Amino acid sequence: MEFHFLGTGSGVPSTTRNVSGLVVRFLQKKSTQWLFDCGEATQHQILHTPISLSKIERVFISHLHGDHLFGLPGLLCSRSAQGAKSPLTIYGPLGIETFIETALNVSKSYLGYEVSYVPVHEGVIFEDATIAVEAIELDHVMPSFAFKIIEADKPGALNVEKLKEIGVEPGPIFQRIKNGEVIELEGGKMIDGSKYIGENKIGRKIVIAGDTRPLKKMKEFSKGVDLLIHEGTFRYDKKNHADQFGHSTISDVALIAKEAKVGLLILTHISSRYAGEEEELLEEAQRTFTESLIAHDLMVYKLMNNN
Amino acid sequence: MEFHFLGTGSGVPSTTRNVSGLVVRFLQKKSTQWLFDCGEATQHQILHTPISLSKIERVFISHLHGDHLFGLPGLLCSRSAQGAKSPLTIYGPLGIETFIETALNVSKSYLGYEVSYVPVHEGVIFEDATIAVEAIELDHVMPSFAFKIIEADKPGALNVEKLKEIGVEPGPIFQRIKNGEVIELEGGKMIDGSKYIGENKIGRKIVIAGDTRPLKKMKEFSKGVDLLIHEGTFRYDKKNHADQFGHSTISDVALIAKEAKVGLLILTHISSRYAGEEEELLEEAQRTFTESLIAHDLMVYKLMNNN
Ligand SMILES: [Zn+2]
Ligand SMILES: [Zn+2]
Repeated sequence: MEFHFLGTGSGVPSTTRNVSGLVVRFLQKKSTQWLFDCGEATQHQILHTPISLSKIERVFISHLHGDHLFGLPGLLCSRSAQGAKSPLTIYGPLGIETFIETALNVSKSYLGYEVSYVPVHEGVIFEDATIAVEAIELDHVMPSFAFKIIEADKPGALNVEKLKEIGVEPGPIFQRIKNGEVIELEGGKMIDGSKYIGENKIGRKIVIAGDTRPLKKMKEFSKGVDLLIHEGTFRYDKKNHADQFGHSTISDVALIAKEAKVGLLILTHISSRYAGEEEELLEEAQRTFTESLIAHDLMVYKLMNNN
Repeated sequence: MEFHFLGTGSGVPSTTRNVSGLVVRFLQKKSTQWLFDCGEATQHQILHTPISLSKIERVFISHLHGDHLFGLPGLLCSRSAQGAKSPLTIYGPLGIETFIETALNVSKSYLGYEVSYVPVHEGVIFEDATIAVEAIELDHVMPSFAFKIIEADKPGALNVEKLKEIGVEPGPIFQRIKNGEVIELEGGKMIDGSKYIGENKIGRKIVIAGDTRPLKKMKEFSKGVDLLIHEGTFRYDKKNHADQFGHSTISDVALIAKEAKVGLLILTHISSRYAGEEEELLEEAQRTFTESLIAHDLMVYKLMNNN
């Protein structure tokens, strides 16, 4: 999985950080892409990446503030102009459909593909055979959500060597062994398939949080995840300010990451007041939790498979 | 007057041309600024210019296609975030208020200044003591307008030397002479004020057109203007294509400019298919009308005073 940080600033765009946008690229799934938040000019940032709009299948909007939302009508139209035919699903708080449909109607934009809307609520909001997305509500000045991407565990590989030793050759029987069935071999010997399968490959888990004050339940929600992507709008000395506007400080979030024992914390949604102070931001995070990074625009983070 | 070309492309943004946006800066009027069209990321382009959002007083939207409109909600919010208090007037086709108000409501954006909406129609849509704006409807696939900025003529200067010769010294009488009154001097001599005023300074006239097929009445509307800013989406060999989508070719527009005897033609809204072919575009325009330019992003054109 690749994480393309398109916009890592907060509120208004600056020359160094655009407003929020993040694409997750599933390398194993035909480069399927999911977009998380879509501030203005997200499509412009995408022009500098290998991301193709037509491969974006799902869009998750954490909350409806403009810096997370206003790039979506233009991105939808450009996706159509580029010839995309595949449907797109938009997950977002109530109100998102009104905004998008008004923008498309007023501008007489006819998309060449189907758009459907799924209102976000706490719990599982998407699930297929290999992946699920679970949401929790955060604590911002308007409804705001965090999303957890949960990769299904994969069964371990067949131990082909061990099977050869007892005289079992590749063939249809392999599938039955993989299923863990108890099987009678020719000659009457019984084998327990589950004994010939390696350990499960544990799926990866990633939490991507929208704007929020630091939240106790985030510790539970992101417990042991491989990657936590969380806003850290301010430094610790702006704690009161952060609280007033429904945001977190870097120190707050580093503590959550530490207590949740996440694999890596990437901080984003950085206030433009800290332009040029990236090292200080990183220091503040790493003082509490070593495995921290400060995102920057067009940064790509590649999360490896487990095992 | 300075013309800042923020976006000179058509339809979708590319790495070389953003979608439509143009700021007119009135150097004599305390740097008052007017914005013409506001495609996505117009505010991002403004970050690379001396333009300040708070000094934008009026926004004119030629038509409601997304590439001329979708940057407006974000720009309004950033203008507020920057502390602007002065009111803003938006001139646009019916539907613009619905789009903007929906965007602001859904995103819970509260602006720190007043916004008012003026539906555009043919005729004079704005007028004060020094300037007026007149609109005509164009021929696009949806209602689309061109705007003519008309600077009022200014009375010529008093001929102070000539007045001295006949013994008239500076004083309150100068204002009456300026008004062109017939005045009795001390000693009974009558003078005609109008004889002591220089020639009127002719105000400048600029036409800024939205998307359109080439239009006969444009020749009349832009007759003798100092500057015509007009779309030229395609080259002449794409004439049928241009017609189908409601656009003009560069050759079409150069002919209009020639017949209208405009001072200068600046072509914009250039299709991204011509990236790297700017010289060929310019040649096509100048073959018909020498005083032509092809706009590029962040180009600044300074229009001097007449006389
Ligand atoms: Zn927010
Ligand atoms: Zn158009």
